[in-house]
Amino acid sequence: MKKTLAIDMDNVIVEIETNWIDLYEKSYGVRIDKADLLGKPEEAAFPDPEAAWELIIKPGFFRYAPPIDGAVEAIRELQKHFEIYIVSAAMEFPNSLREKHDWLAEHLPFISWKNIIFCGDKSVVVTDYLIDDHLKNLDFTKGTPILFTASHNVNVQKHTRVNNWQEVLDLFSKDLVEQNN
Amino acid sequence: MKKTLAIDMDNVIVEIETNWIDLYEKSYGVRIDKADLLGKPEEAAFPDPEAAWELIIKPGFFRYAPPIDGAVEAIRELQKHFEIYIVSAAMEFPNSLREKHDWLAEHLPFISWKNIIFCGDKSVVVTDYLIDDHLKNLDFTKGTPILFTASHNVNVQKHTRVNNWQEVLDLFSKDLVEQNN
Repeated sequence: MKKTLAIDMDNVIVEIETNWIDLYEKSYGVRIDKADLLGKPEEAAFPDPEAAWELIIKPGFFRYAPPIDGAVEAIRELQKHFEIYIVSAAMEFPNSLREKHDWLAEHLPFISWKNIIFCGDKSVVVTDYLIDDHLKNLDFTKGTPILFTASHNVNVQKHTRVNNWQEVLDLFSKDLVEQNN
Repeated sequence: MKKTLAIDMDNVIVEIETNWIDLYEKSYGVRIDKADLLGKPEEAAFPDPEAAWELIIKPGFFRYAPPIDGAVEAIRELQKHFEIYIVSAAMEFPNSLREKHDWLAEHLPFISWKNIIFCGDKSVVVTDYLIDDHLKNLDFTKGTPILFTASHNVNVQKHTRVNNWQEVLDLFSKDLVEQNN
């Protein structure tokens, strides 16, 4: 039986940061630099955090964000070796439920609806691996946590870190070689 | 720490059968008796299964179904003793995602968004107990399965069966007494 691999959406397969910066500029006329987000809790990096929060709860925010570089191809490759679940804490944003469903149908049509989980707390979703950008999820997983780099987590010193999808593939190819030996 | 208890929505806390019969009559002018549903896979019990299926995927079907008798009060009571998760295979019906979210906000406002899970396959959602009406979920749970009676499962001879929410309370009150002794 294939091992199970859970993959978060925002900042892991969906390019939330750039989308948020672009939309903030479009709405309020101020462009912040991606470097300004480093090490800060997400919306706190914007000049007006409340205004930034308004954007994320508006219809369309999650639907039209682009995929993170290499995510789609890497997940297609990993699916040969793992039972993949997409696990998103979408419940915090009710508007995002349908949008995230439709996003996945467009960008990852090879993921069955049976393998999609929208939740809040991820601690009862138990898989062999979890790739996520948030400690609130990684610290409580019962599987192996893998930290995907996002601006807000650059100073985190816990868990195995991957900076991009090529590093995810490299990590699992080592893991698969070890399993086969 | 409280034990975790996962509870399914359709046919367990949401009165799907009566809602479906009512809507079928309203749409096609034929009323089927609830007894006709006994022992049959859900939509197969309707004279025109495809027409029945059309109803369930229409906007509004899940949003305006009533709660099952006693469910709300029982879940409020059980929440004193268990960490409750509402776990619904909502992903099969994309329209239902927002509707089920809003249904829960209306009928079970004391359940946090953190404790709601919309998924497909429930096998990676791991809790101490699962109350559900479908073997496809109960057979693969890693916790204790509890079969909630629905017309389609009356002939099932597996798992501990509960016929209504009073029986759920009775079952867990025995369990809690045993835990305390």
